[in-house]
Amino acid sequence: MAKEISPSVRCIKPLQYTALAVRAKQITQELAQGVQKPYSELIQLIWGDPQNAGIQPLTFVRQVLAACLYPQLLNNDGLPADVRQRAQGLLEECKGGSLGSYTDLPGIPQVARQISEFITRRDEGVPSDPRNILISPGSQWALQNILSLLVHGGERAGRSGVLTPVPGHCTSIMSLVSVGGVSVPYQLSEEQGWQLRLEELNRALDAAKQVCRPVALYIINPGNPSGHVQSRESIQDVIRFASENRLFLLADEVYQDTIYTESKRFLSYKRVLAEMGPPFSDTVELASFHSASKGLLGECGFRAGYVELVNIDPAVKKHIYTIFSKDNAPTPGQIALSVMASPPVTGEASYDFYREETQQLHSLIKENVRRVHEVLNSLPGVCSQPVEGGAFAFPRLYLPPKAIDKAKELGLEPDTFYCLRLLETAGVFVSPGCEYEQKDGTYHIRFCIMAKRDTVEDLLTRLATFQTQFMNKFS
Amino acid sequence: MAKEISPSVRCIKPLQYTALAVRAKQITQELAQGVQKPYSELIQLIWGDPQNAGIQPLTFVRQVLAACLYPQLLNNDGLPADVRQRAQGLLEECKGGSLGSYTDLPGIPQVARQISEFITRRDEGVPSDPRNILISPGSQWALQNILSLLVHGGERAGRSGVLTPVPGHCTSIMSLVSVGGVSVPYQLSEEQGWQLRLEELNRALDAAKQVCRPVALYIINPGNPSGHVQSRESIQDVIRFASENRLFLLADEVYQDTIYTESKRFLSYKRVLAEMGPPFSDTVELASFHSASKGLLGECGFRAGYVELVNIDPAVKKHIYTIFSKDNAPTPGQIALSVMASPPVTGEASYDFYREETQQLHSLIKENVRRVHEVLNSLPGVCSQPVEGGAFAFPRLYLPPKAIDKAKELGLEPDTFYCLRLLETAGVFVSPGCEYEQKDGTYHIRFCIMAKRDTVEDLLTRLATFQTQFMNKFS
Repeated sequence: MAKEISPSVRCIKPLQYTALAVRAKQITQELAQGVQKPYSELIQLIWGDPQNAGIQPLTFVRQVLAACLYPQLLNNDGLPADVRQRAQGLLEECKGGSLGSYTDLPGIPQVARQISEFITRRDEGVPSDPRNILISPGSQWALQNILSLLVHGGERAGRSGVLTPVPGHCTSIMSLVSVGGVSVPYQLSEEQGWQLRLEELNRALDAAKQVCRPVALYIINPGNPSGHVQSRESIQDVIRFASENRLFLLADEVYQDTIYTESKRFLSYKRVLAEMGPPFSDTVELASFHSASKGLLGECGFRAGYVELVNIDPAVKKHIYTIFSKDNAPTPGQIALSVMASPPVTGEASYDFYREETQQLHSLIKENVRRVHEVLNSLPGVCSQPVEGGAFAFPRLYLPPKAIDKAKELGLEPDTFYCLRLLETAGVFVSPGCEYEQKDGTYHIRFCIMAKRDTVEDLLTRLATFQTQFMNKFS
Repeated sequence: MAKEISPSVRCIKPLQYTALAVRAKQITQELAQGVQKPYSELIQLIWGDPQNAGIQPLTFVRQVLAACLYPQLLNNDGLPADVRQRAQGLLEECKGGSLGSYTDLPGIPQVARQISEFITRRDEGVPSDPRNILISPGSQWALQNILSLLVHGGERAGRSGVLTPVPGHCTSIMSLVSVGGVSVPYQLSEEQGWQLRLEELNRALDAAKQVCRPVALYIINPGNPSGHVQSRESIQDVIRFASENRLFLLADEVYQDTIYTESKRFLSYKRVLAEMGPPFSDTVELASFHSASKGLLGECGFRAGYVELVNIDPAVKKHIYTIFSKDNAPTPGQIALSVMASPPVTGEASYDFYREETQQLHSLIKENVRRVHEVLNSLPGVCSQPVEGGAFAFPRLYLPPKAIDKAKELGLEPDTFYCLRLLETAGVFVSPGCEYEQKDGTYHIRFCIMAKRDTVEDLLTRLATFQTQFMNKFS
């Protein structure tokens, strides 16, 4: 069997993370066994997983969920009236009145309507039709399944290519490769705050034409791991480029509610496209992805997201429906999406507390971002672009040549070597830039900034000490 | 775009169900608007979705889930002590103590251990190693992802083939086709109670070799939609056949806890394989699938299942891990799996009630099965094999030639025509046999038998009246 596994699966690159995770697990066990180390516990901020990093879930989400799952709670005075009312309404739209039933596409009907109203509010009136929304088991699932439709496998020159950002989200590349597509990298410009530059898209497209047939352009805004937020002009550039080159736009917008800079706001591709008017607004094909796992909700464990389809050919849409009908989004995750799209409003019992929780969370992350930026840029050999949005810091490491040589000697990527040392000596588990692709000769680390204040402070303190020692050792 | 979508997606056959579902939706709306029909509401038993058919979820599952999702309930005296204790224990094994965090493979560690202990008990001592278990977002997800590894696309004769039962589960075929594989049908023998016959496997394999390279054999036991339960001898035959022809065994065993005949019991492929001894027990590659959606648990909305891997080459296993690491099983579904694998035991507060609920449910379905068999076989032109297990009745319809002609005139499959008429005139929504593949010239309907007693009686009454009228009209 081993020699016969499918080539598209075989060429999926295992994550660097795996080797680090094995060591992290050992260290955790050693600490539990009382082995003496310079730290008493690991700090793990590898994924965008806020609850793993000690952030509490939003109470309203969990209350509604508990009442939906165990409807005896609908009669429980311990839960606020609007929670019970909300749960009752959602259950009425579930088949058999239960979260245990399958849902038809697009999902629980009320949730699809709420998402469409949420999009219309977000885009300040640009209309959204619930029939263009498909709720899915996570945004990544939706992306992979749309890719499976866009991408032809086969001989290399005939294979379909998708332009993907560098640095970018490693799971998306994995999805693309697993359906037989070719990843066509375009570089974000680190020195310009990770801006997406039109010249670079053109260069990437020209280079791609030698090896594949580019069919789509994948964007992550706010960026992961880059943390930049695109301006209206930048989005317009991308849309014109997609239009000229007949590329399907895949807009990963899962961090849309986490922007930390006063000077920028989130603008969706859907909105900018609509506001550009014809011919763009009625021809450029767009799929926009969002998720209950990301942003302030951060319910990663529930696996629910949605995609909104814009300007999709009806024949293609039919096939998308067929593929999406193969699997349901988990109903508990759909309930989380419902709250995300339709949070409590003024006058409802839970409104004040929900607002307080979300505002506190936003302020906490903003303060994390401020401190991360301040400390990282004070360290020798480290430079971080502003984190304008999203869940990650992605500072550049200027590694001394001796460190790079040492890494090569060990058969490791230089930043994997750095992460391994950081893990070993400082008990800090972050991931290396090579995991996300990066410009040749540059090195980075990525860590999640959606974490408790003291966790982030602790990480910064340990990192600062480590970095000084590391630079001394290899200088 | 429309002409350019991937050929493997394009050849996924849309379900017959879709056209029927559109009409069913219209009828529901018409009834709500007060349009007069011979029935006041639709009976919908198309899917194996017991909660949609009015079956209540098991209380213990939902109590544990509610407490895990909203941990304030851990201090609530309204919940039994063992529920709270169970929830507490599960949360301690979740990252960050929350169901909102991602889980690493194989899933929440305690749940993987519970599943492995469950398998060892079920197989009367055949050992199971939690490291061979992967919890996934549903058994279908696991099947599709293992297929993506087994199957090479490309030119027809070089493409990988998988032997699949006729009748069989339509979503599995869809998964196979979508990853570029060829479905190689083998017929179950209806006249012999849907037995799987070795001659037929040999015939199918020989026929397949003209058009593809067979790499795997997919079995559903208990059958869906056929409802048969394989004997030890039949399973041994299949294992020997797989061994001789170096086929990877994919055993879909999601209905293992729903057997209705006293004379048979569920035997897993894993167990029979182990008990056959060498060379089989240490060479035949097997993946066995199970799910929280099926059987007595019936939590279809939660999307969680698992696969156990047996005798898999370590190099292949590594790739399976890489693919499975792309997505987590939803944590609420993992909690349901936990209860399925480790239900309350004697002495625990919830034991008696849990046992009562499961026994009542089992008796109810058994009585449904008895009545379904009795009534169906009393109808002119209908013949049902015994439903030994699973969630479905799949009676054969002997349609009059005039009805077949009428269907062809309308461009419909004969049993789709039958289902459409049944829906229209009797308000009964079941699915046609052509959806599941069937022997040429035979026609069937499938409906779920996991439903409330009165729903099933109502269906049988309406079906009986309809069938007599239908036979009169077209004779």
